[in-house]
Amino acid sequence: MNSNQILTLTSDFGFSDVYVGVMKGTIAQVNPALTVIDLTHDISPQNIAAARFCLMDAYRYFPEGTVHVAVVDPGVGSNRRAIAIEFERGFLVGPDNGIFSGILSQSPAIAVVELTDTQYWRTPQPSKTFHGRDIFAPVGAHLASGVPLRELGRTIDLATLVQLDLPQLIHTPTEIIGCIQYIDRFGNLVTNIPGSDVENKTWTVRLARQIIPGRQTYSDVSPGEALALIGSHGWVEIAIACGNAQEQLQQHWEDRVEVVISER
Amino acid sequence: MNSNQILTLTSDFGFSDVYVGVMKGTIAQVNPALTVIDLTHDISPQNIAAARFCLMDAYRYFPEGTVHVAVVDPGVGSNRRAIAIEFERGFLVGPDNGIFSGILSQSPAIAVVELTDTQYWRTPQPSKTFHGRDIFAPVGAHLASGVPLRELGRTIDLATLVQLDLPQLIHTPTEIIGCIQYIDRFGNLVTNIPGSDVENKTWTVRLARQIIPGRQTYSDVSPGEALALIGSHGWVEIAIACGNAQEQLQQHWEDRVEVVISER
Amino acid sequence: MNSNQILTLTSDFGFSDVYVGVMKGTIAQVNPALTVIDLTHDISPQNIAAARFCLMDAYRYFPEGTVHVAVVDPGVGSNRRAIAIEFERGFLVGPDNGIFSGILSQSPAIAVVELTDTQYWRTPQPSKTFHGRDIFAPVGAHLASGVPLRELGRTIDLATLVQLDLPQLIHTPTEIIGCIQYIDRFGNLVTNIPGSDVENKTWTVRLARQIIPGRQTYSDVSPGEALALIGSHGWVEIAIACGNAQEQLQQHWEDRVEVVISER
Repeated sequence: MNSNQILTLTSDFGFSDVYVGVMKGTIAQVNPALTVIDLTHDISPQNIAAARFCLMDAYRYFPEGTVHVAVVDPGVGSNRRAIAIEFERGFLVGPDNGIFSGILSQSPAIAVVELTDTQYWRTPQPSKTFHGRDIFAPVGAHLASGVPLRELGRTIDLATLVQLDLPQLIHTPTEIIGCIQYIDRFGNLVTNIPGSDVENKTWTVRLARQIIPGRQTYSDVSPGEALALIGSHGWVEIAIACGNAQEQLQQHWEDRVEVVISER
Repeated sequence: MNSNQILTLTSDFGFSDVYVGVMKGTIAQVNPALTVIDLTHDISPQNIAAARFCLMDAYRYFPEGTVHVAVVDPGVGSNRRAIAIEFERGFLVGPDNGIFSGILSQSPAIAVVELTDTQYWRTPQPSKTFHGRDIFAPVGAHLASGVPLRELGRTIDLATLVQLDLPQLIHTPTEIIGCIQYIDRFGNLVTNIPGSDVENKTWTVRLARQIIPGRQTYSDVSPGEALALIGSHGWVEIAIACGNAQEQLQQHWEDRVEVVISER
Repeated sequence: MNSNQILTLTSDFGFSDVYVGVMKGTIAQVNPALTVIDLTHDISPQNIAAARFCLMDAYRYFPEGTVHVAVVDPGVGSNRRAIAIEFERGFLVGPDNGIFSGILSQSPAIAVVELTDTQYWRTPQPSKTFHGRDIFAPVGAHLASGVPLRELGRTIDLATLVQLDLPQLIHTPTEIIGCIQYIDRFGNLVTNIPGSDVENKTWTVRLARQIIPGRQTYSDVSPGEALALIGSHGWVEIAIACGNAQEQLQQHWEDRVEVVISER
């Protein structure tokens, strides 16, 4: 057994109930030496797009070989597939509903299996409502403990994976048109426009009826003022210094955002 | 010292303060090699019944020998006893207020001690308000590190443990009458009627003025519709597909629930 | 590499986003064998005073040599310094904004460095908004793994550290005048008056227009009644038995509190 192997958990279970604790129990039943790290369990219920962003945002900061288990799973109990994916930096385990499509847009899948071998599940008769506990967490624990991907089930065609993708960016000579792809708990609005598109340029953001200046850092404006900057996620982000941009600007997921480049 | 021993924590402390972090510090002072897993710290303040359900729901998913420390403790500082219990699957440490009576209804106690030996406490002069830090967490850490139960204090009679039990189920030829014993953060209403009582039958639930159909899985109804099903906890559960049953049906803890069996 | 070394994390990041998970990933990239304990991530946004209290409250309950990483950092991206401190019980890593001044008021700093050696950062080009991930977490992981403090950057003068201190207590022959320094999630009002000042005395608290009796424990009053007691933090604390003192007494951070000693 490898030591110090890392397994992360992402879900919409919250911490109010024992769902997350129970998944960790089933992992410890497989291999108590694994290190389990919570990415977040506060995905809003059944918001696959938010989980997709969080996973895409986080995976590169983990050691190679890390196993990411994600359970935002409105289709549990239906015929949606349960899958495990090998990619360059590690492994992904969860439902086939597009939750991993953000990671895979940056780092393609190498191999995918449908989880059909019940010997790696907690029980061959899983509950109809909690595959996180009965399938995904134990399978992730076996993967992190060295079980080869191909033993977990039958290989499936990469092209058949469910996709969940945002609208493509539109580039004009002076503008980039994208959308809000995530809103964090500070109310910062994370767009799908890469920071590299505005780096070392003079730029502003047009959002609803407002023009917001592109800046380097929060302290470049006074408290209460809106600014756009390259956020820690690496995307163009709209924030209010010492404030909440979502509340103040009344913006929502997938709302249109235009970056205007005025000078290179 | 055993390696990879698991200790779980359950409390009503939340994560806003450092109470949980401090309990983990005192555990690390006893034995930094223990693996600590949070069951939940979002029990509503002093809700022993909720903690009782959560512990009963979770214990079977942990490795044998796991130590469960639970601190929902409105009687702290009074003369309620501090106890440790050995049962078939591991150990329980906390106040003697009925918090473990759900687990013990399924898996009886083998031995119980009152925690009287102060050498296993963080300090022989514990604070009057935080026995989680000063008594329960360090005692749990010693137990998980191999200290025998009987060394922790004086043996007490199992029959003297404080009980916290729900009303008994009523079975008629066609009905089972129980109550709501837990409400999770999705608003799902978990009853105290075992799923095995309705398995492979045709059944409905009567709740306030509504008749709710018994189904297999969320996807058997349209979004927004109410259904009853055998939930992942193993109990009959009432849910709204993609919705919140507690808010929509206006139900509360211990509200009456009737299962009607129409066909076997 | 030391085994079972402890690193704690304190921040205002919450658990809704992946910020905390990502810091743990960068720690695992440095040394996957470290044990990471969350003190709290629910500090209200940018409330350095609350983080100062939480750290001061918690540090003594951790093993010697523990590394405490704290990231409540409104000045991120400005020219505030990033520092690491050695003190008697371990190490502190974070921004130089007074966040550690509570701990240091009880246990003085032995040595301080400004974090200038980029080889211990995640990247020599840190983001302008997330030094927790790019500097503090990886530096903390290196410290916990045995890198000497002096290698992390250039030594700075202890006297130049930013201070964040509460008003001094005023002692009269019969009174001690202080303030509320923290409010926990139960609404308990924690003052900056040490419990040792009232121990074994007869005393009351004057707060706004109310006189509140000094008691030993919650169960000394009826549910719903206000009391003052020596709280688990070791400070004089004002609470409502089975209730929320902040809501009921309408008090706030830094509001004046008077302890009146009537008898010794």
